Order: sequence, then C-alpha cells, then structure tokens
Amino acid sequence: MSIKHLSAGSQEVPLQKGKLRLYSMRFCPYAQRAHLVLNAKNIPHDVVYINLKSKPEWYLEKVASGKVPAISVDGVELYESLIIADFLDEKYPDRPLHVRGDPLRKALDRLLADRFSRVTSLLYKLYAGSTPNMDPAILESIFDEMDYFEKELAKRGTPFFFGDQPGMVDYMIWPWCERLEMVRILGGDQFKVPRDRFQRMFAWSKGMLEDSAVKAIYCTPEQHAKFLQSYKAGTPDYDNILV
Amino acid sequence: MSIKHLSAGSQEVPLQKGKLRLYSMRFCPYAQRAHLVLNAKNIPHDVVYINLKSKPEWYLEKVASGKVPAISVDGVELYESLIIADFLDEKYPDRPLHVRGDPLRKALDRLLADRFSRVTSLLYKLYAGSTPNMDPAILESIFDEMDYFEKELAKRGTPFFFGDQPGMVDYMIWPWCERLEMVRILGGDQFKVPRDRFQRMFAWSKGMLEDSAVKAIYCTPEQHAKFLQSYKAGTPDYDNILV
Repeated sequence: MSIKHLSAGSQEVPLQKGKLRLYSMRFCPYAQRAHLVLNAKNIPHDVVYINLKSKPEWYLEKVASGKVPAISVDGVELYESLIIADFLDEKYPDRPLHVRGDPLRKALDRLLADRFSRVTSLLYKLYAGSTPNMDPAILESIFDEMDYFEKELAKRGTPFFFGDQPGMVDYMIWPWCERLEMVRILGGDQFKVPRDRFQRMFAWSKGMLEDSAVKAIYCTPEQHAKFLQSYKAGTPDYDNILV
Repeated sequence: MSIKHLSAGSQEVPLQKGKLRLYSMRFCPYAQRAHLVLNAKNIPHDVVYINLKSKPEWYLEKVASGKVPAISVDGVELYESLIIADFLDEKYPDRPLHVRGDPLRKALDRLLADRFSRVTSLLYKLYAGSTPNMDPAILESIFDEMDYFEKELAKRGTPFFFGDQPGMVDYMIWPWCERLEMVRILGGDQFKVPRDRFQRMFAWSKGMLEDSAVKAIYCTPEQHAKFLQSYKAGTPDYDNILV
C-alpha cells in the first residue's frame, strides 16, 4: 500500500464533520502513539500524512510547530503525543488505557512512560552518528535504562505493564521497542539485544505483536531501518517503503 | 522564619501515618508548584526541605534523582511537578484545578502549561551568564513568548486562565512570574517588564498575589534575587534569606 504524505503546495483534505482527524507521518514513533490509542479504543478517525521535509502551508497554519502528531477535534488542534493520548482516553471512556479510579496508580504509570524518554534520547544519540559505526557504549546505556522496565514487569507480575492487556504505558513505549531491532540491522551482529537479560521484555514484545492495535500500524524493523537510512541520506522516503 | 533544609548526615523525619509529605526546596519554582496545589486544595501535609547541594543519604534512597519536588503518599514517592499536581487534583476532588468533564479544555490547558517551558528555558539561559551583563536579546525572546499568554488571557476573557479564580495553568506558571522582577533587580532598569505590552498579565499577577495559596508560599523578587546570587556564587543560602 502506497502512502501519500502531503507536501508544500498540496490542498488541504477537508475535515469530515464530527470525525476526528489525525495528522501523522508513517515512520514517526510519536505519531504512532496516537495511532495506537485510536486503534486500541476503536475511535473513528481519518489520517492525513504530512511530508515533514516539505510541510504543507495549510498545515503550518493549523499547527504552528509543523510537528506530528496532531489531531483535529471539534475545530481545535491538539498536539504533543502524551497529551493527545490522555485526551483520547478521557474523551472516549470505552476500553480505558489508564487505570480508572486510582490516581496513584495512574501517576506511577505516567512516571514510567515519562522515564522511557531516557531510552528515546539515548536512541537518538545512537543514531545521530554514522550508523555503520554506532557507539556500543551508548547501546549499553540504553540496556541499563531498559533494565528498569524489565524489573518493573517482574514487579507487576503481569504480561503487560497495564495488566492482562496493553494499556497506556505499553502503547506509549511500544514505538521505540518495535524499532529496537534496527540496532542490529544497522550496526551488525554485535548489537543484538541480549535475550537472557530482557526475558520479560521479549515476552512482552511478543504479546504486543499479537495485539490488533499494534498490528494495524506495524512496520518491520527492516522497513524502519530503510526509512532511517533514507532520512539520514537527506531524502526521507515517506511514501514508498511500505509498497 | 528560619527554614532548615536537611543535608547529608541528617536523620530522616518520620512520616506521619496517613499524612502526605512534600519534599521541597524553598526557592525551587518546580517545588513551589506542588506547594501551590496543596495550599489551594487545603490538603493536609507536612514539608521537609532538602539541601540540594548536600543531599541527605536517606533522600537519595527514596528519590534516586535527588530532585525536588517529590511527595510521599501511601508509602510511595511521586516526583515531576506536573505529574504530582495532576495526581493531587485527581486524588483530592475538592476545589478542582482542572476543568471537570471537559477533556478538550483540560488538554488545551495542559498544552498551555507545557508551552510555558519555552519561557522557563529562556529564563535559565538569561541567568546562566553573568547576571550584571544579561543579554537583552534573550529577554526580548522571553517577552515574545509571553505575548502568547497575554493574548490567551484576552481570548479567554477571564481574570485567570482558569476563570474567576486560579486553576492549574495559573498555579503551574506562577512561580516564574513571581520571580520575573528579578530581571530588573539583577540587570538594572533597562530590564523592566513593559507594562503596556503585558496589561492583562500584570492584572493577572495582581490577582494572583491576593490568592491565599500564593500568599502562603510567597517570596519577594528581592529574596529570590538574593537566593539566585548566593546560588551563582556557589554557596546557595537555603536557610537564612527569609529570616
């Protein structure tokens, strides 16, 4: 399936009255968070994909930062993936992704999702350099941070951070976990994620891959790597990788 | 009133059963957010002040980052000022600080509070250099960012961002507004905040200064400046400025 990302000079796609609109980029992990929440909660919506290298003028008028994800809802634009996710969970109460009626548990889950930003910033650092020469020390720091999540799963004693099915923490951290194998693809076999060290996270990952919300917006690590390489070459291939 | 900030080598102050504990530093704007929410909602609590230059060992065991604010509640520590604030607002429903039953309005308020981080990071940049030689260009950028808040007050047409009384946005941005006059104290008269440009924010500020939650944890700009100077000199005076 070819996905058309709209560029500068494009026409705005009219909103459908009463229907939520997601602005996304197919390989953006932050946008994926919004897809996952919309999918998990079965919220009717359409998606408009944005070429982030050549942003449509009409998009910059709507969302001054030009970033994705953003959603249009009741004539207003919301951005910031975590704020969008919490909004959707509050506005559409079916299939709650935050535990209801337990503010402490919710706060702890928000802290856990927030803590994952340590992993994501290390990942950006890892990929910032020349990918065939990635720094193994950064990867080791990533694993050190991920130990916390491995231990947290053990502490919670459930297959997902939320419980028996994925919830907010699971969906908020998933996009980077889906991409983690990129490390091996781009850096070679010495960059394998150690299975014994992350037994629970591997089982979790397997469970996530069986989740219908995840499946509906999944890309293989190879596809993610292909996109990253096109991006690093200065010619991000938004439209053709999934064809 | 002298405020004792506990240091390395100190004994932990035992928690009172069922009572919430706030860990704070008297001049920390992030910790002030937690004070404001606790005050506004009249939540019974005690406060333990932490010497951030010489952190108690027992505190580092509780809160690995050693940062403030943190709260102890039901045997668990929460940190990150915005997560603490939202938790308190959910756990203690009296005097709601987020609009209830309107997820879109809540999300817009969260975006607004989030946007204020542009102001705070510019302020840190402004004070990072030598204070007698602050860069007027940075101050101008701060005012540019504050224009958004001035306009937002006009758009909302209420004395506070929340409405007729302060709410979450008001309390979350207040600590830096309380300190804004420091610019003039440290940088001289050319750094005055222009009254005509920020008429609504000045009226808002006056209203905030009359709020009992604000009054209970207020410091004058001169006191804040004194603390900042002691901090920049490498000898932060946690305990004696308010005596």
